[in-house]
Amino acid sequence: MRTIKLTLAYDGTDFAGWQYQPGQRTVQQTLQDALSQITGERISAVASGRTDAGVHALGQVVGFTTSSHLSPEIFQRALNAELPRDLVVLSAEVALSGFDPIRHAVRKRYRYILQDGPIADPFSRRYAWHVFRRLDVAAMQRAAEPLIGRYDFTSFETGGSERVTTTRTVSELSVTRQPTPGAAIGCVGDGRKIHTEVVADGFLYNMVRNIVGTLVEVGRGAREETWPAAVLAALDRRAAGPTAPPHGLFLVNVEYERQGAGDKGQGDAQADAIN
Amino acid sequence: MRTIKLTLAYDGTDFAGWQYQPGQRTVQQTLQDALSQITGERISAVASGRTDAGVHALGQVVGFTTSSHLSPEIFQRALNAELPRDLVVLSAEVALSGFDPIRHAVRKRYRYILQDGPIADPFSRRYAWHVFRRLDVAAMQRAAEPLIGRYDFTSFETGGSERVTTTRTVSELSVTRQPTPGAAIGCVGDGRKIHTEVVADGFLYNMVRNIVGTLVEVGRGAREETWPAAVLAALDRRAAGPTAPPHGLFLVNVEYERQGAGDKGQGDAQADAIN
Repeated sequence: MRTIKLTLAYDGTDFAGWQYQPGQRTVQQTLQDALSQITGERISAVASGRTDAGVHALGQVVGFTTSSHLSPEIFQRALNAELPRDLVVLSAEVALSGFDPIRHAVRKRYRYILQDGPIADPFSRRYAWHVFRRLDVAAMQRAAEPLIGRYDFTSFETGGSERVTTTRTVSELSVTRQPTPGAAIGCVGDGRKIHTEVVADGFLYNMVRNIVGTLVEVGRGAREETWPAAVLAALDRRAAGPTAPPHGLFLVNVEYERQGAGDKGQGDAQADAIN
Repeated sequence: MRTIKLTLAYDGTDFAGWQYQPGQRTVQQTLQDALSQITGERISAVASGRTDAGVHALGQVVGFTTSSHLSPEIFQRALNAELPRDLVVLSAEVALSGFDPIRHAVRKRYRYILQDGPIADPFSRRYAWHVFRRLDVAAMQRAAEPLIGRYDFTSFETGGSERVTTTRTVSELSVTRQPTPGAAIGCVGDGRKIHTEVVADGFLYNMVRNIVGTLVEVGRGAREETWPAAVLAALDRRAAGPTAPPHGLFLVNVEYERQGAGDKGQGDAQADAIN
């Protein structure tokens, strides 16, 4: 038996999330069906973490074991021939036996895309949260800075936690308005989007969407810049702003330790995502 | 009665093109229905030109006459509240009476987006033609240059022409690989797209798609760089390459003469499109 590591991109719009649910079109089921077609085996694929319905991935990492002798390159090509157009394998490699995509992950990067202003871009309606009011990005950035560090993020978790600890280390949190390259028109709308990037060693349920929902309250002037820090300190889920909708959220990449998984170390998942 | 000029953007994916067809979801019908809701009148909207099923617009120009006294700003806001999410009014203004969006147009710009390489980007599957093989963009650019100028483009027209003349002036034709800004990830895939830009005083049916289909034959090495010039000279539709599919094509803007239409002159449609 070998363990294969895949890096996937998917448009989450038409998936009911990663995780198998009877009668639903999920990424896991779609991938496992394709793997069964190719190998003749019943294969269980494990992802670095679930993504919710509507959430996209630019570099989700998945592992599975197989007795097939196909090379990773052939796996990738056969999967991409078999999979629907909203799910693609960016790379495939042999992982060390025992590779655990969940427990061996050391860092993940998420991106949340906002489009602000009175005219909603038809080309990004599936890939960005449209907010009518122009947002004060500098205020959002200043409000976000106190969330960088090792804290109990329980205020930004939706629902009862099944986790042992709600402490996480956020190593990067930035809110920036993207430039408007004329060339980006026709890619997705005008390119004038706001990106919130969050890197952490782990994420609580809906953590990015709750952080973004809270920062947007600052950006639209409904709350003070100091409010997100107060939400964090409150250790109370009811303190946070509304949960941002799923369709603006992208899992960008997942980093693994060098020895953990047969991958080539930090920065690789990023390279895969840009593939 | 007043004449109103609208600039529209639409995602052509789920429209059966611009032009009214019974029982089909078209841009014209969708817009006219919204105008009727707002004004209580039966309004006929005229576009600068038809776009085919699946073709997108970043700056289509439309005119209509109304006895309504609503300001253009209110028209725009009311329309954007009424229209579905794949059709948006970028700007509205009062035009000179007699404004004819077809006959007063002096130039149009189209963009055709290609994505090349073995991995199809799920996020651009509706907005770019995916070509498996890596394309030689420099060869495509050199092959395109002889098509710039005033020529009979009959070789690049699909179907029998109803037009008086098939001579058109192409003032710009460029093929460029777009840079890969990391930030463009999550906009639509990797941003590493090939843009073909064509500006002309008018276009024959499927002219851009036939030019692109012909240039792709050069880019993938199936034809010599001199071939597109020979196709042009042949004055024979059967000489050209295959027609590129509609979903990579964007009508970027339409330019009008200053005095013709109450618009603010050359360059404005571009500004509207970037709105």
